[in-house]
Amino acid sequence: MKKLEEYIALAEKALNEIEYPEVPTGLYEPIKYGMSQGGKRLRPVLLLASYEALGGNPEDVLSQAAAIEMYHNFTLLHDDVMDNADLRRGQPTVCKKWNNNTAILSGDAMLTMASMLLLKNMPAEKIIKLSQTFNKAAIEVFEGQQYDMDFESRNNVTIDEYIHMIRLKTSVLLGCASKLGAEAADGESEKCEALYNFAMNLGVAFQLQDDWLDVYGDAKVFGKSIGGDILNNKKTLLLINAMNIAKGADKEELDYLLNSTDVFPAEKIAAVTSIYNRLGIDKICVENIEKYNNIALDYLAKAGLDEDAYNFFVEFDQKIMGRNK
Amino acid sequence: MKKLEEYIALAEKALNEIEYPEVPTGLYEPIKYGMSQGGKRLRPVLLLASYEALGGNPEDVLSQAAAIEMYHNFTLLHDDVMDNADLRRGQPTVCKKWNNNTAILSGDAMLTMASMLLLKNMPAEKIIKLSQTFNKAAIEVFEGQQYDMDFESRNNVTIDEYIHMIRLKTSVLLGCASKLGAEAADGESEKCEALYNFAMNLGVAFQLQDDWLDVYGDAKVFGKSIGGDILNNKKTLLLINAMNIAKGADKEELDYLLNSTDVFPAEKIAAVTSIYNRLGIDKICVENIEKYNNIALDYLAKAGLDEDAYNFFVEFDQKIMGRNK
Repeated sequence: MKKLEEYIALAEKALNEIEYPEVPTGLYEPIKYGMSQGGKRLRPVLLLASYEALGGNPEDVLSQAAAIEMYHNFTLLHDDVMDNADLRRGQPTVCKKWNNNTAILSGDAMLTMASMLLLKNMPAEKIIKLSQTFNKAAIEVFEGQQYDMDFESRNNVTIDEYIHMIRLKTSVLLGCASKLGAEAADGESEKCEALYNFAMNLGVAFQLQDDWLDVYGDAKVFGKSIGGDILNNKKTLLLINAMNIAKGADKEELDYLLNSTDVFPAEKIAAVTSIYNRLGIDKICVENIEKYNNIALDYLAKAGLDEDAYNFFVEFDQKIMGRNK
Repeated sequence: MKKLEEYIALAEKALNEIEYPEVPTGLYEPIKYGMSQGGKRLRPVLLLASYEALGGNPEDVLSQAAAIEMYHNFTLLHDDVMDNADLRRGQPTVCKKWNNNTAILSGDAMLTMASMLLLKNMPAEKIIKLSQTFNKAAIEVFEGQQYDMDFESRNNVTIDEYIHMIRLKTSVLLGCASKLGAEAADGESEKCEALYNFAMNLGVAFQLQDDWLDVYGDAKVFGKSIGGDILNNKKTLLLINAMNIAKGADKEELDYLLNSTDVFPAEKIAAVTSIYNRLGIDKICVENIEKYNNIALDYLAKAGLDEDAYNFFVEFDQKIMGRNK
C-alpha cells in the first residue's frame, strides 16, 4: 500500500489524464474548471486504495477513479444551481462564473462522461457489476438530494429519517467508491460489501461531524464560517434532536429563534448554541459520530485485509475524522 | 416485420414496464409525468424495428427501447428549464408544474435510469458496444445543445455550422436508436452503420422540415402556431440563408425586422415570410430537406435488409416526412 499523499497524487494524475474534446468550449471549459477546484479527492483515493488492498495495481483503474470524482463534481454543479450558491471552495461556482444553463448542461455532460470513464480499459465481464454498483449509488444520491429538499418544508423529521437522508445523499458514494475498487480487483463479494460498508458508515460519521463542526468547530480549520446551519434553520442532527427534546422555556425560545427575523445573526447562533448545550445536544451528536465511526471500523476489520491495507484504512479514517477536534 | 402502430404499441408497453421506486415521490412523480406526456415514440420504434429487421424478437429489447425514450425525455425536462418553457405537448412542463429544481433533479435521475435500463437483460458481451453507442450519442446531444445556445449570440452562423448543430442536437439520437437495435441483434457493423446513417440523416431532414413548417405549415396539422421561430429570431436554415443572401433593400428590411421591437408579431411574421419568398428561401429549404432525406434512403438501401424490413423503413420515412405537406 502507498501513503495517503501518494494516492491523492495518483487521483490528481487520473484527473489530469481525462481527455476533453476541444469544442464546444462553452460545454467543456466549465467542466475543467469544476474539476480543477480541488477538494480532498476522497472518492478516487478510496477507489484506488481499495483496488490495491485487494491485490490490484492502482495505475490500472485511473479512469474509474476519474469517473467517481467526475460524478461527485457533477452533483456539486447541479447542487449549486439548486442552492443558488455563490462560492464553492472559495471560488465562484460554475452557475455564477457562467450561468445556470451552463451549469445544468455541463453537469449533464459530466454525468455521461463519468459513465464513459467507468467503462474505459475495463474487461467486459466486469462492466455489468461496476455499472450496476455505480448506477445504484448515483440514483441513491438523487433520492438523498430529494429528501433533503423535502425536509426543508417539514417540521417533524425524525433522527432515523435524517440519517437515511445523509446516507443516501453523501455516504453511499463513498461506499460506492470503495466497492468499485474492490470489484474491479475481483474481490470476493464479502470483501466488496465489507469495504462498501466501511466507507459508507465512515461517510455517515463524516457528515454528522460536519454538522457538529458547523456549531462547535474552529472556523480557521473547518474552512467555513461557524453557525451557517443555525442561521439557515438547517435540519441537522443537532437541530432535529433539539426540536425533539426541548420542553417548556427552551422549546419556546427555540421556536422563537427559528421563526423570528428580528434576531441578529451572531445573537441567534449564540442563543441556539446555548440551548444545544443546556440540552446536551453536543454529547448526543458526538455519541452518534462515534457510533457510526465504530460501525465503519467493525466492517473494516471484517474485510479480511492484510495488515498493511488494514492499517492504511485505519489511518485514512483517523485523518478524515480527526480534522479539527 | 410489424406495422408502425404495432411498434408504437410495443414502445408504450416498454414504457409501462419501467419499474419506478415508490419513494421519494418528489423525485419519481415528475419522471412518470414527463414519460406519460406522449410524443411520437420515434426513438423506441426505431430501436425495436431495427432489432427485428436484423432477426431479433423486439420483445427482448423492451428495456433498451425504454432507455432511449427515457434519455430523450430527460433532455426535454432540462431543455424546458433552460428555455423557461411553459408548455410541452400542450401540458405544463415539469419545471412549471413543479419547479426548476425538481426538473433538474428528476432529469438527472432519468439520465441514470436510462443507463440502468440500457443494461437490463443484456448479455455482458454486448454491453460495452451498446454503452459506447449510447454514451457517444448522449455527449453529442449535449454538444449540440451548447452550439444551439452559442448561436443565439452570433450573427455569422453558416449553413454548415447549422446542419452540424442539428445533427448533434437532434439527429444522432435517432441514429443511435437504430444502431442500438441493430447492435443488440448482433448485426454486422456495416448494417449497424447503414441503419445509423439512415436514421441520423432522416433526423436532419426531419428537423429542417420542422424549420420549414414553422413558416409554411398549417398550424392545425403542425400542432404549434406558425411563425414562432421568426418571432424569436431563431437562426433556422431559413433565416441563416436569408441573412446570407439578402442584399440592398431586402437586407435593410430584414435587419430592421430582426432588431426592432416596434413591429407587431403578425406583421413581423408576414414581412419576414415575404422576404423569404422573394429570395427563394422556401425552395432552398425544400431542396435541403430532399437532399438529406435522399441521403437517408441511400443508406437504407445499403443496409442489406430483406424486402419486408426495407419496406417498413421506407414507409416509416414517408410517414415522418409526409406530415403536413
